[in-house]
Formats: sequence, structure tokens, C-alpha cells
Amino acid sequence: MAMDGYRGFLALLVSALLVGFLSVIFTLIWVLHYREGLGWDGTGLEFNWHPVLLVTGFVFIQGIAIIVYRLPWTWKCSKLLMKSIHAGLNSVAAILAIIALVAVFDFHNAGNIPNMYSLHSWVGLTAVILYILQLLLGFFIFLLPVAPLSLRAILMPIHVYSGLLLFGTVIATTLMGLTEKLIFALKNPAYSSFPPEGIFTNTLGLLILVFGALIFWIVTRPQWKRPKEPNSILLQTNGGTAEGVEGSVAINAGNHTGKLDSELNTEVAARKRNFTLDDAGQRSTM
Amino acid sequence: MAMDGYRGFLALLVSALLVGFLSVIFTLIWVLHYREGLGWDGTGLEFNWHPVLLVTGFVFIQGIAIIVYRLPWTWKCSKLLMKSIHAGLNSVAAILAIIALVAVFDFHNAGNIPNMYSLHSWVGLTAVILYILQLLLGFFIFLLPVAPLSLRAILMPIHVYSGLLLFGTVIATTLMGLTEKLIFALKNPAYSSFPPEGIFTNTLGLLILVFGALIFWIVTRPQWKRPKEPNSILLQTNGGTAEGVEGSVAINAGNHTGKLDSELNTEVAARKRNFTLDDAGQRSTM
Repeated sequence: MAMDGYRGFLALLVSALLVGFLSVIFTLIWVLHYREGLGWDGTGLEFNWHPVLLVTGFVFIQGIAIIVYRLPWTWKCSKLLMKSIHAGLNSVAAILAIIALVAVFDFHNAGNIPNMYSLHSWVGLTAVILYILQLLLGFFIFLLPVAPLSLRAILMPIHVYSGLLLFGTVIATTLMGLTEKLIFALKNPAYSSFPPEGIFTNTLGLLILVFGALIFWIVTRPQWKRPKEPNSILLQTNGGTAEGVEGSVAINAGNHTGKLDSELNTEVAARKRNFTLDDAGQRSTM
Repeated sequence: MAMDGYRGFLALLVSALLVGFLSVIFTLIWVLHYREGLGWDGTGLEFNWHPVLLVTGFVFIQGIAIIVYRLPWTWKCSKLLMKSIHAGLNSVAAILAIIALVAVFDFHNAGNIPNMYSLHSWVGLTAVILYILQLLLGFFIFLLPVAPLSLRAILMPIHVYSGLLLFGTVIATTLMGLTEKLIFALKNPAYSSFPPEGIFTNTLGLLILVFGALIFWIVTRPQWKRPKEPNSILLQTNGGTAEGVEGSVAINAGNHTGKLDSELNTEVAARKRNFTLDDAGQRSTM
């Protein structure tokens, strides 16, 4: 597969995987070595599943789900397969996030700690609810072959925007959660006396932030985007047919061809091809 | 000025201004009504300048600086003027952020509270340092008319990416800061007992997040981008001259025309025009 800056892409991908994996390992070391460990008994052991599941699912797996279309060795795979992997990874992330919420609510209720009073909880619960909504909308509109083309074209830029916004919000929420837990848990020695656990968990926060930065870079490079199908390019150059499809015009008018809506152009062009060139089957859901 | 979805843009701009302004007002109400007020005496009154200056400068003014090129009524203004406004707003934000840091260090030192132990402080100080670096690089590379075209072309996507990443990081840091302060300050009644100040300041956190989301939407819509100059479009359609300029090829090869590097295409095309069509003067710094 031809790709501009393939080595640069690989270096960034390996860095993202490494930093993401390290974030998960750091979270495990944090709860197993510095905290009480893991369990499901209403104590701090159950709470500890909260950061473990969220960093694993909502940060690491969600991050990978975001860049899965950009792996050049998947460009020969069908779009349906890649959409299924994207949806599958996001579903795993959502399930882990829900279990993480159960863990913290259980822990609070068992210890008579109030729920939902902190900014962390407000933003976090909102993010989980919107993430599930995003997942359901994505499933019914982009994965199932039922939504009309015009609707897909209108909603694709919103889907991409919402996904990145939610990912960023999840990272911000994670940093708030680490801040809360360190202030609550580190009393003697206090967080402010630079105990090893404080330094270690601050470093975990930085790793999560760097992971987010790497994913954001990878997903916003136009040259690393899954390429348009050869047929769709043919269609476009032969009179710009893809531009004329309903729904595309309003969003992508003029001479501004943007990253976010070139996503929908691919979509539109490929669907157009399915109808025009009768090349359905493998790409029937595009 | 012609613009796709002008009413939508206006609605979002007004929303962003309103939510950003409301964030500043909420911060002022927080420190003046719920906290001790403002002063410069090493006490909590001096600390209170920290959130006021950061929400005003580092959140609100930085947000406006990010979208200033997208105001359609400025499209007839010279790019040099718009760059100066962009740089000026970011400079104001940086100065307010530095005063905000002085306020919190003064407050800590006067009260023998350790500095730089929290994740908030690690991420926040890093963000301020990188922001100043971004400002200096922006000034010398994009505003002063000395940097070679190829360097500008290579660095523009990095400048745009870094700017958005720093803006997101600043918002995450603000949310961590609110979390810290509420846990430290709300003891009797505790943060966990849903006191009015807790609810009020959580709402401030949500406002800041919504402001960030609005700015992120406005700045990533390709149809709301400052348009290319008519002459540069002419150049591009007449054989794609702008594509052939050194530095542009490597970054914007193939058929992927992306939002971030269409920024540099504008730049490249306009400079090209300055050389080719001898239309220098007003746009000499592009």
C-alpha cells in the first residue's frame, strides 16, 4: 500500500501503542503496588477497578478505535470489516466504562460516600452517556445498511467531531479523577510532600495526555487517511459526480475540501459507485 | 462576503462568545461571592487571581484567538493584520497566564504550601511553557517576513495542531484546578454534601468545557475557513502551480486535501502569488 510518510506513521503508531500500553501498566502498578489491589467487595479494592477499566477501555482502546481506519495494511480490507472493528473496539470500551461506573457507585454506596457531587462525576457520566449514544447512532446510521445516503453525508462530520471531542473529554475526566484520588488517598505522607505514589501517578497522568496527543496527531494527518477507492476517484475526475450527490453539496461546497468531510466524500463516492458501477456486495454497507 | 452556512456560523460564534463570557462571569462570582475576593497580599485573595486570569486569558481569549481567522467580515482585511490580531490575543493570554502563575506561587510561598507537587501544576506549567514557545515560534516563523517558504509550509500543520492541543490541555488543566480547589476549600459543608458553591463551580467547569467544544467545532469546519485568494485559485486550476511549491508536496501529496494543510496551501499559494503576480505589499508577510 502506498502511503506518504509511512515510516513516520509507523514511528508514531508504535509510540502511541507503547505510551498507551504503558498507561495501562502504570495504572495496574498504581492500584496493585501503591493502593490495596483489586477486588469486588465494596471496599477500595472494588473502587480500584474504576481507574483500571477506564484507562484500559475508555482511554487506550478508544484511542486505538479512533485510528483503526488509518492502518495502511487494512486499506485492502473491506470498509465493512473496518467499520465492524471500529464499532467493536468502541463497544468493548463502552462496556468497560459501564463496569467502571458500577465499581465506583458500589464503592460509594457501601461506604456511604455520596455519588455525583464532583465535577469529575458530572463530566464523566455525561461522557459515558454521550459515548453510548454516539455508539448507537454510529451503529444504526453508518454500520447498518439502512440509513439514506443524505443522512450519512450530513452526520459523518458530526460523528468524527463528536468522537474526537468525547476522547478529549474522557482524557480530561481521567486527569480530574487522578487529581481527586491522589488528594483523597495521600494523607500521610500528604500528596504535597512529594511521596513516590504522587510522582508515579502524576507521571501516569502525563502518559495519558501524551497518548491523547499522539492519537490526535495521527488522526488529523490528511496524508494518512484511508484512500478513496480508485473507482470513486475516476467518478470524481470524470465530471465530479461524487460532488453532486444529495447531502454532499451543502456540506462540502466551494473550494474547501476538508479532512472531516473528505470522510463523507469517500463514503458518498463509494456508495455512488455501488449504485452506478454495480460493484455492491463487499461494500454494501458503505 | 459569501460563506456557506453563514447563519449557522453566527449562531455558533454568538454561543461561543456567550458561553465564554459566562465562564469569566462565573469565575468572578465564584471568587467574589463564594471565596474571599481579590487582592495581592499572599493570602487566598491573591490566589483568587489565578482562576480569574486563567479563565479570562488562557481559556476565553485563547479561544477567540483560535477562531479569529474565521470571522467572515475580516476576510477583506490583510492577512498581516489578522496574524497580528491572532498573535496579539495570544500574547495577552500568555501575559495573563504568567501573572496567574505568579499569583499562585506567591500564595504558596507566603503560606508555606509546597509548589509543583500536583498533576495540575505539572500539566499547567508545561502548557504555559509550550504556549510561550508556540507564541515565539509563531512570531518568528509566520509573522516576521524572514522564514523561508518551505519552513513555513512544513511548520504550519504543526502550529495548528499544537495550538489546538494546547487549548485542549489548558481546558483539562482548568478542570483539574477547579477539582483541586473545591476539594481543598469546601470542608464545612463538604464538597460531597452538594453545597451551592460546589454546584455553582461544577457548572463553571461545564461551561468551560462547552466553550472548548464550540471553539473546536468552529475551527474544524472546512467551509468556514478564510478563503483562498482568487488569484491563488486561478494559479491552482491553471496547472496546479501551488501544489508544486517546495515543502507543500511532501505534506500534501496525493488526493488528500486536508483542513490543516489547506491552511498552508493558502499560505503557499498566496506567497507564490506575491512572487508570481508581483502583488506584494499588503501580504508581504504571508
